[in-house]
Amino acid sequence: MGNCSFDQKTLHAQLLELLREFRRFGMTETGGVTRLAASDEEKEARDHLCVWLKNHGFTVLIDPIGNIFGVLDFGLRDNCRAFYCGSHLDSQPEGGHFDGVLGVVCACISSLFLKAKIERGELEPAYRYFVVACWTGEEGARFQPSLIGSSVFTGRLALDKAWDLQDSNQIQLKQALIESGYLGTDKPPPPEHYLELHIEQGSFLERSGNEIGLIEACWGAEKIRLSVTGKADHTGPTPMEERRDALLAASLLVVEIKRIYTASEDVLHTSIGRMTLHPNSPNTVVDNAELWIEFRSTSSAALLFAIRKLETRLLAIADQTGCTLGITNRETRNVTKFDAVALDLAAQALDETKTPYQRLETIAGHDAICLQDICPSTLLFAPSKDGITHSPFEFTSDEDVCAAFDGMTIALSAIVTRTGNAI
Amino acid sequence: MGNCSFDQKTLHAQLLELLREFRRFGMTETGGVTRLAASDEEKEARDHLCVWLKNHGFTVLIDPIGNIFGVLDFGLRDNCRAFYCGSHLDSQPEGGHFDGVLGVVCACISSLFLKAKIERGELEPAYRYFVVACWTGEEGARFQPSLIGSSVFTGRLALDKAWDLQDSNQIQLKQALIESGYLGTDKPPPPEHYLELHIEQGSFLERSGNEIGLIEACWGAEKIRLSVTGKADHTGPTPMEERRDALLAASLLVVEIKRIYTASEDVLHTSIGRMTLHPNSPNTVVDNAELWIEFRSTSSAALLFAIRKLETRLLAIADQTGCTLGITNRETRNVTKFDAVALDLAAQALDETKTPYQRLETIAGHDAICLQDICPSTLLFAPSKDGITHSPFEFTSDEDVCAAFDGMTIALSAIVTRTGNAI
Repeated sequence: MGNCSFDQKTLHAQLLELLREFRRFGMTETGGVTRLAASDEEKEARDHLCVWLKNHGFTVLIDPIGNIFGVLDFGLRDNCRAFYCGSHLDSQPEGGHFDGVLGVVCACISSLFLKAKIERGELEPAYRYFVVACWTGEEGARFQPSLIGSSVFTGRLALDKAWDLQDSNQIQLKQALIESGYLGTDKPPPPEHYLELHIEQGSFLERSGNEIGLIEACWGAEKIRLSVTGKADHTGPTPMEERRDALLAASLLVVEIKRIYTASEDVLHTSIGRMTLHPNSPNTVVDNAELWIEFRSTSSAALLFAIRKLETRLLAIADQTGCTLGITNRETRNVTKFDAVALDLAAQALDETKTPYQRLETIAGHDAICLQDICPSTLLFAPSKDGITHSPFEFTSDEDVCAAFDGMTIALSAIVTRTGNAI
Repeated sequence: MGNCSFDQKTLHAQLLELLREFRRFGMTETGGVTRLAASDEEKEARDHLCVWLKNHGFTVLIDPIGNIFGVLDFGLRDNCRAFYCGSHLDSQPEGGHFDGVLGVVCACISSLFLKAKIERGELEPAYRYFVVACWTGEEGARFQPSLIGSSVFTGRLALDKAWDLQDSNQIQLKQALIESGYLGTDKPPPPEHYLELHIEQGSFLERSGNEIGLIEACWGAEKIRLSVTGKADHTGPTPMEERRDALLAASLLVVEIKRIYTASEDVLHTSIGRMTLHPNSPNTVVDNAELWIEFRSTSSAALLFAIRKLETRLLAIADQTGCTLGITNRETRNVTKFDAVALDLAAQALDETKTPYQRLETIAGHDAICLQDICPSTLLFAPSKDGITHSPFEFTSDEDVCAAFDGMTIALSAIVTRTGNAI
């Protein structure tokens, strides 16, 4: 496929081998992976990455939020520009082996591709440094919110606030980073461009048969934390009309939120992935429920519609159940457009090499969204079987992995030579 | 108040003193009590009871499930009949100082009342033995189910199964009993009648101003464990129509179960006190929900109606959500009628002494329900302020405690002389 003809087999073998090596860190009985942010399992994976980077001539830096940066000096041009490429190594509980890892592994192996091309005089990058980035706590599983490492790095989230985040066992992220040996003080060269390959977590590519997706934009999101307060009572004798059942109120809300999806004229995804109950004892009426609600859309108007509808329903459910319902946290993620110049360069290169690709949007958040705040960024998608993700059944075949990697190196070659001060 | 005129003050003082003595075992900072079954705190309370019993001429027996029996030989009649009177010493976490303890203390002090009456020739019991019973694990808090000791004693629950029950730290009940020194081998004389005084855990008596309640029946219950299986997916990109959201299905079920209450023509209490979710991560569609459902009613037909409705709704919700819903465990507690002969004797004696009482039903389970399986049993209620229970705020005033004790001794005198072989 086009200009990747040199030693492609060796690169593919290295790629698949490195991808396989990461599978063992946090592998579960069901064949999935539980590699939560700053856990022992993630530490093993991070250590493995650092060893690989050092063995391949990278300088490894760790910043105060635990982001890992492998810095490779191309040494070719009289500038200090850094091109970043990466993703994350943390996973959901019982998640899959491709989400995040594929991007880190492809960043590593693409450095070998670039080095070989440069040595042969076939490519002249516009950047001095190639930085493999591994971002902390992308998943939002152990610590909320998601995208912690890239948010701190790009200034969306204050370091102090991030350090203070607690997991469900009240362990602070700072403490977890110290214990895993990934609380650093390094400051890498600032990024001038960021590129990330991620699995699609949807099935557009699989259905179209295209090898790679160029992501034009990311949907906006409203992430809402909501608290429901009722009253603890014996589930037996307490008269039904005197109960203030926080689980009933929370359940009415879950059903209403699905109705908001149905009622929206614009595209809108709604979900509640997490809910905790107190005291959660079979013989006691639930007196507190905490809900994690998400609305996602390409349309800011649809997100506003959802929030307004939610607020109205809160009052109605409070009336109906005698419970108190209140939003305790709201995080807005605006619709993000990725750098159009790089997208066009990538599209042109893929056209020229007759690589089957398509332009897509992303609904899921990715570290590239944060990076787009501070530098032109590019997000690419690899196919993902049936779109299943955050699950042991998440899967991309070796063939699809290699084809996506090839597409990525084509896009990367174009962007790395024709952006930055080369333009 | 009628025939309790002898030395009533001394008995009341002993009653209130003994009740106060038990408060210290497991007292918490909030003023409540955490005295879980077979814990160190409950061991202290049990030891205290055993000392009291021995000091008052009782023979103390411990059976294989840790039930304590203080056996007093009246020695008056040529029979081996045993009259049992008791309750339990374990509590809920952060529970109150009256639930259970009041019945044990009143059983102890009523033995002094009976002894004095017998010695004065004012009362001739139809039973040779008076047995103070303290049942193991009534609350179902540390070990589930509830009513463990009385269920094993009456044959509802096999000893082996009860021994194998585990608390949330995987400690077996048998091991906990061994460690607390309450795994015995004794076999007390079989009960021919059982009487238990318990706080109402409701507010009928408080509202009516009556001193004691005669319980005619215990509501039946269906305790159902239900599992909902959906599919884990990313809450962002997964198209809404492809999601199989176990939380949505569980929430529809919670709402439907409340509707079953509304639709029932008979009295029916419905509740879901406990629900667990998996993986319960903000960015992943819930793939499993486990629900603990209760239906309670005086009417078997209403319980059957509820179960049928539930089954129908399971199918509809499965259709609507693409999830699988299934009952994984069902425990039926039949409507229990307490012995009518003893009830009428008690009512007549209370009428004669002009003691204000009322007939009631119980919704909460009590050890007396198990005992009614094997012998005529009587359950009496004392008033309980605002009906608050399973809480540090559970409260019955000294005045109400003494009045209920007096009512109990009136009922007890009638039953102990005019049932058994005396009839």
